[in-house]
Amino acid sequence: MVPSGPGEGPSRYSSRHGTGRGCMNPVLVEALRGGVRESAHRGAVAVVDADGHVVATIGDIERPIFPRSAVKVLQALPLVESGAADRLNLGDEELAVACASHNGEPEHVAVVARMLAKAGLDAGALECGAHWPYREKVQRDMARAGIEPSALHNNCSGKHAGFLCVACQLASQPGAGVDRSGLRRFAAGYVGPAHPVMREVTASLQAATGFDLDQAARGTDGCSIPTFAIPLRHLALAFARVGTGAHWPAGRAAAAQRLRVAVARHPFMVGGSDRFDTRVMQRLGERVFCKVGAEGVFCAALPGRGLGVAIKMDDGNNARAAEVAMAAAIEACVDLDDGEAQFMRGLSDVTLRNWNGIEVGALRAAAELREKLG
Amino acid sequence: MVPSGPGEGPSRYSSRHGTGRGCMNPVLVEALRGGVRESAHRGAVAVVDADGHVVATIGDIERPIFPRSAVKVLQALPLVESGAADRLNLGDEELAVACASHNGEPEHVAVVARMLAKAGLDAGALECGAHWPYREKVQRDMARAGIEPSALHNNCSGKHAGFLCVACQLASQPGAGVDRSGLRRFAAGYVGPAHPVMREVTASLQAATGFDLDQAARGTDGCSIPTFAIPLRHLALAFARVGTGAHWPAGRAAAAQRLRVAVARHPFMVGGSDRFDTRVMQRLGERVFCKVGAEGVFCAALPGRGLGVAIKMDDGNNARAAEVAMAAAIEACVDLDDGEAQFMRGLSDVTLRNWNGIEVGALRAAAELREKLG
Repeated sequence: MVPSGPGEGPSRYSSRHGTGRGCMNPVLVEALRGGVRESAHRGAVAVVDADGHVVATIGDIERPIFPRSAVKVLQALPLVESGAADRLNLGDEELAVACASHNGEPEHVAVVARMLAKAGLDAGALECGAHWPYREKVQRDMARAGIEPSALHNNCSGKHAGFLCVACQLASQPGAGVDRSGLRRFAAGYVGPAHPVMREVTASLQAATGFDLDQAARGTDGCSIPTFAIPLRHLALAFARVGTGAHWPAGRAAAAQRLRVAVARHPFMVGGSDRFDTRVMQRLGERVFCKVGAEGVFCAALPGRGLGVAIKMDDGNNARAAEVAMAAAIEACVDLDDGEAQFMRGLSDVTLRNWNGIEVGALRAAAELREKLG
Repeated sequence: MVPSGPGEGPSRYSSRHGTGRGCMNPVLVEALRGGVRESAHRGAVAVVDADGHVVATIGDIERPIFPRSAVKVLQALPLVESGAADRLNLGDEELAVACASHNGEPEHVAVVARMLAKAGLDAGALECGAHWPYREKVQRDMARAGIEPSALHNNCSGKHAGFLCVACQLASQPGAGVDRSGLRRFAAGYVGPAHPVMREVTASLQAATGFDLDQAARGTDGCSIPTFAIPLRHLALAFARVGTGAHWPAGRAAAAQRLRVAVARHPFMVGGSDRFDTRVMQRLGERVFCKVGAEGVFCAALPGRGLGVAIKMDDGNNARAAEVAMAAAIEACVDLDDGEAQFMRGLSDVTLRNWNGIEVGALRAAAELREKLG
């Protein structure tokens, strides 16, 4: 039942051709106003166990999609497996921020800077680019304090600091011919697909998903690293194994567990204030490891049930669509007490209020999504 | 050919029931990465002339949708028709900002404050609520200057100032029994559907669209006024008449023309820096009056061709979906010289770059949209 290479599952519609009028993904999330549906979000969901059995499927889970930042934990496996985390004495906060799409809050920036310092590097080595933090309040706080954004504020800076720690490890290996002062030069260009660091990262992604990335469509991510199109079924399988380690070599399984535990201990590091991932993991602890990606992608490991979940919204909407769908999936697949269930329902059936605090509508998981998730 | 009340056109699918798997709106806009479609936006488009003839139709144009802020020009008609604009000596900037969803930039705030002062009121009379300006740079500039947001910064503050000017006019009518000092009390609650001001505004919307709003689904907008669900065909008809005045009483036709000309003279007032509406009208002048609304709605009057356009994206995406679709509609329906056509193509076929400036993909009008728009 382990999924093999591409072309195995029949794709119900091509991503390149046609208008998708034929067999289409259903509505997973709807926005209501005045009691009627104002907008709707279509998408697909795969729930898979660590043996590769598809436990629930909604929409097309065989079409390859770019997972973007949802797979940062898979891209961080080499950081632990290579021995870099041990040699550089990385703690849980640093491992958690390596899996993050963070808000660029002062805590994130400090941990990333510390991580780079442990590798003998600084923000100048980051190749992710700089942007103002996504969280507007953080932008305003920075503006008041006269701080301009650097690459440390980039939501991917922790992942990139992890890549640089891998570079440090590769450079330190016997025969690498890189002395400490040559590290910066060795690491340069690490975002490129042919760089030794990115080759490690890509190999890890391929091993975890069981999908042949040589044959996959490749794009460039917002932070300049390659992103590969992978079917939801394979992504969900990888996350089932992140949660259980089943069918994985001991080193990879241990690395996944260490990253999961690090994030469970420091969920703020993986997102930040008011972020879905952070809030859910603060509440549910190690029972859920979830990670949003750009363009409406969401992946989760549910270790207690041995399941992995992968979601892609057709329209690429994260903040209100993929999150609501993921909340419904967690409600359906995780054993929750009444308080936890109520907390999660507040994320899958959201009252919308306007600037005056007046209730104007709701965002909610569509009936079909709840039915199919059981 | 004038559309009449609801129930006339067969709705191809209900907004209340089912998953919409049957006859569905086509993909109008697609986001590409690495040469493949990463995300897609479905929707519907109506292009209608002032006699009510449907010139082009894509998807379901009979299903009522909430037009939200796209109809601010229709809601501003009473400001001119009632005589308020003349009596209060409102200029073009003030009329333009009454039709705006503005960025909350200093210029917008100043004009709205001036408009309120002409009515003998101030920001305390606004019932739209306060929010930080949508444009992040404006937020940061305010934070640096130590300015907190007020109702003047609300993107709808100009529309609300217009409502208050109508209140001032109604209060001044013989027999109203309201003296100048009683205006604030008379205006209070103007956002409610039963207030004399909102009754004027709703009557104007009904007259302009030819749609029976007593029978329409009603919701509450972000700024607390009612919003009524109206089919795209009726919205496009109203905008065709905004552009031409055909079939309208002389007073309403003149009011629409005065508002259009005011916006064409001050397109910055209707949006602001880097905003689609502002940029397009700065470039094309009176040949286009276009206005975005929340949840993926976009309406336009194209006076030179005597056409109205109304668009609704199923998923509610404005910034990249409704705008790209509207740009394609303008390209198809407006006579443009080469430079103008190139400018508009830059808005309907957008190169996406990441934080490092590397080209990573594109947003573009789908082939089906361009074909059907002819």
